[in-house]
Amino acid sequence: RIMRPDDANIAGNVHGGTILKMIEEAGAIISTRHCNSQAGEPCVAALARVERTDFLSPMCIGEVANVSAEITYTSRHSVEVQVNVMSENILTGAKKVTNKATLWYVPLSLKNVNKVVEVPPIQYARKEQEDEGKKRYEEQKLDRLETKQRNGDVILPVINPEPHTVGYSQSSLIHLVGPSDCTLLGFVHGGVTMKLMDEVAGIVAARHCKTNIVTASVDAINFHEKIKKGCVITVSGRMTFTSNKSMEIEVFVDADPFVDEPRERYRAVSAFFTYVSLSKEGKPLPVPQLLTETEDEKRRFEEGKGRYLQTKAKRQAQMQQSAQ
Amino acid sequence: RIMRPDDANIAGNVHGGTILKMIEEAGAIISTRHCNSQAGEPCVAALARVERTDFLSPMCIGEVANVSAEITYTSRHSVEVQVNVMSENILTGAKKVTNKATLWYVPLSLKNVNKVVEVPPIQYARKEQEDEGKKRYEEQKLDRLETKQRNGDVILPVINPEPHTVGYSQSSLIHLVGPSDCTLLGFVHGGVTMKLMDEVAGIVAARHCKTNIVTASVDAINFHEKIKKGCVITVSGRMTFTSNKSMEIEVFVDADPFVDEPRERYRAVSAFFTYVSLSKEGKPLPVPQLLTETEDEKRRFEEGKGRYLQTKAKRQAQMQQSAQ
Amino acid sequence: RIMRPDDANIAGNVHGGTILKMIEEAGAIISTRHCNSQAGEPCVAALARVERTDFLSPMCIGEVANVSAEITYTSRHSVEVQVNVMSENILTGAKKVTNKATLWYVPLSLKNVNKVVEVPPIQYARKEQEDEGKKRYEEQKLDRLETKQRNGDVILPVINPEPHTVGYSQSSLIHLVGPSDCTLLGFVHGGVTMKLMDEVAGIVAARHCKTNIVTASVDAINFHEKIKKGCVITVSGRMTFTSNKSMEIEVFVDADPFVDEPRERYRAVSAFFTYVSLSKEGKPLPVPQLLTETEDEKRRFEEGKGRYLQTKAKRQAQMQQSAQ
Repeated sequence: RIMRPDDANIAGNVHGGTILKMIEEAGAIISTRHCNSQAGEPCVAALARVERTDFLSPMCIGEVANVSAEITYTSRHSVEVQVNVMSENILTGAKKVTNKATLWYVPLSLKNVNKVVEVPPIQYARKEQEDEGKKRYEEQKLDRLETKQRNGDVILPVINPEPHTVGYSQSSLIHLVGPSDCTLLGFVHGGVTMKLMDEVAGIVAARHCKTNIVTASVDAINFHEKIKKGCVITVSGRMTFTSNKSMEIEVFVDADPFVDEPRERYRAVSAFFTYVSLSKEGKPLPVPQLLTETEDEKRRFEEGKGRYLQTKAKRQAQMQQSAQ
Repeated sequence: RIMRPDDANIAGNVHGGTILKMIEEAGAIISTRHCNSQAGEPCVAALARVERTDFLSPMCIGEVANVSAEITYTSRHSVEVQVNVMSENILTGAKKVTNKATLWYVPLSLKNVNKVVEVPPIQYARKEQEDEGKKRYEEQKLDRLETKQRNGDVILPVINPEPHTVGYSQSSLIHLVGPSDCTLLGFVHGGVTMKLMDEVAGIVAARHCKTNIVTASVDAINFHEKIKKGCVITVSGRMTFTSNKSMEIEVFVDADPFVDEPRERYRAVSAFFTYVSLSKEGKPLPVPQLLTETEDEKRRFEEGKGRYLQTKAKRQAQMQQSAQ
Repeated sequence: RIMRPDDANIAGNVHGGTILKMIEEAGAIISTRHCNSQAGEPCVAALARVERTDFLSPMCIGEVANVSAEITYTSRHSVEVQVNVMSENILTGAKKVTNKATLWYVPLSLKNVNKVVEVPPIQYARKEQEDEGKKRYEEQKLDRLETKQRNGDVILPVINPEPHTVGYSQSSLIHLVGPSDCTLLGFVHGGVTMKLMDEVAGIVAARHCKTNIVTASVDAINFHEKIKKGCVITVSGRMTFTSNKSMEIEVFVDADPFVDEPRERYRAVSAFFTYVSLSKEGKPLPVPQLLTETEDEKRRFEEGKGRYLQTKAKRQAQMQQSAQ
């Protein structure tokens, strides 16, 4: 579809969150369709995880986003979908790859939302494809378990923070979950959650460096718990790490089922977003260094540095490989 | 209401689809109100057909759209509504007629969506009004039957198409039907469908001529089948004909009730949109000729030419009439 | 227009904020039209103040909102507009008055946004109308000055608050101002701001009483400062007072022009919203009393009680008057 002014920031760059939302909608449609392709219990595919994804080139207002999706692996209870996004300038005809994302879905029964339905198997052209898919499946399963442990951190408010400290840029928003945010099952679309997460992360980044910023990448996101219609969700973000030209922001999503249900507020999702700062000509700008004050902040900065260096090493390895 | 940036293209012209959506909302309100005006079964008016409509002058961001609707004919089971749209520049006070559209609605029972309710008759000032309305009613009924036959065509993808061929500009989008797209009966508003159709047709036109384009007219649109909440709709468009200064695009809407229903994908709506290409000063530009390759494409081009010449002849006849 | 699921809460009641937004749009159109009606500098009417308004009866999904607006007074630099909202059930034909609101607009030049343009005077049917209008004009001017003094309060975060305390329900959201939120001058529509304020106030109310809540009334709202496109706005709410069956919530709007401008965060708007709690049958429910802890909270509770008793006395006086 055509990118509109509301999809973009004031510099005309489409929000990463808008793109993530389109990716998730495509993934949800293809996996729901697949899971209902054989006579069985009607079901709706729910997003369980999005693998790390890079925003390779910015998209602008007036461009057309082409989203294509393909199922690449199925386990007994989950579906892996590969989604590619291309931006097309329909005036010049130029096309660019914007994103490649891998998503995992789990089909939930329409009649009983707590029941996971069986997934019809797909056919593989070669045996290796199935083996590689299985490996990816095991890896993501492990990672989901690990991050479930980590959850529990809370962003505490800070009074009168200094510029460039963690407390200075941390931000949160609340959102009342409405009908258009939800699937047929009455739970929030994963894409809606990701869009709000990107919105908060973008505000944290902009508060820190006070320039035009764009999403560079999103780390793997795990969706631990469903969020029901009528909940209030609180999306909070804080900066964890800065390199010379990038900022890492941790984002938490907490759900508060405050009407009609006796449940406590719970952590539904958490993830790391990386942003870069751009000049008016679209060139990357240096980023002010994050000032860490507490022990926790220093620890998180070091952890962020670890992730940064690891990603950098991986990217260099890939570049060497493709250069050979 | 005031036209916003999201209602318009990058040149500031309001999308024809936004206008069609406002027209349909006004028509749905007045005909639902009329059909419930006598004590009877509560019902909701569903759009059955929109007659051919011309976009007489472009509307811009910041202008106010004034929409007025009037019931002009009732048969036993259908209502004809005439809707006029004026654009008003509230800074200069200038008003212009943007559109005159004629819509046909059928009242469906709130309790049983497959039951068509009887329409209370309206009073006519003169007997001729009733007779003319009846004639229009018979004509549209005939036309609806005919187009129902035609449906069944499919747009196949093309690999590496040449510029200005049919395959080069053909486009499609998918949309998951959400609650706010739907009426009280849980079926998609006709206006929502038309807005998506205009969006696809606009992308086809822009891909073909790579300039700023605007909707010039929409041929009669028949709504053969209802589309339910939760469906995925695929809207596809391909160019069928070009004259020196206009492009005709055929648009199909297919609905895929992929959850909860054992039904096949079906063709819900199809229509022809005509676009013109505008320079930065708003003057019409010449349009590159469409290159037809297959026999089907050549046939559709000739059919399009027929519609074009017929419309041109009709307009000249009207102009001569009003000049007398 | 027809009320959609997105306009309403899960019980189907249209949000007060949606209604306030429609009211403001109607007011902005009629006053901008009036101020440009004589040859002079082109201008756009900006909302300066909304008088206290009561929500007389709830509006539901599927009903049609009829909004009518009339200019009732003009001073040299401001316009008073009276807006009435009726809800119409198009199935039964039943109509109810939902709202009567009075709004004040100031016309700002399109060329120089800091210049207030002169307002063409209106004609009054009777001399008393002009005198009464002038009295209302003087009163609101005085009130705007007063509330400007009051501004400066900040909502501080609370760690682990007890249920029914002020800290327990206080909430805030951030919103990045996009193009569709803005007028032709590039400043946020007053109606957009009011919608966000109602959203936060509603969440505060629901957190406090954990039931379905609806807006009962909004105290006079003064718009002290414009908010520019690209700003981040923080909307914060805290409960100030509870009676047996109502809750008063104070809402602040702060704007943060963090990109491209050297300005500090500033208070743009503040107001009091009153909510009631409803059972599933739509009957008012008792509200848990607000627990006040600090001196400031106790003082604000007493002030809220004062406003509550004053409003109650006024309403009783009006009822006696109309009974005579």
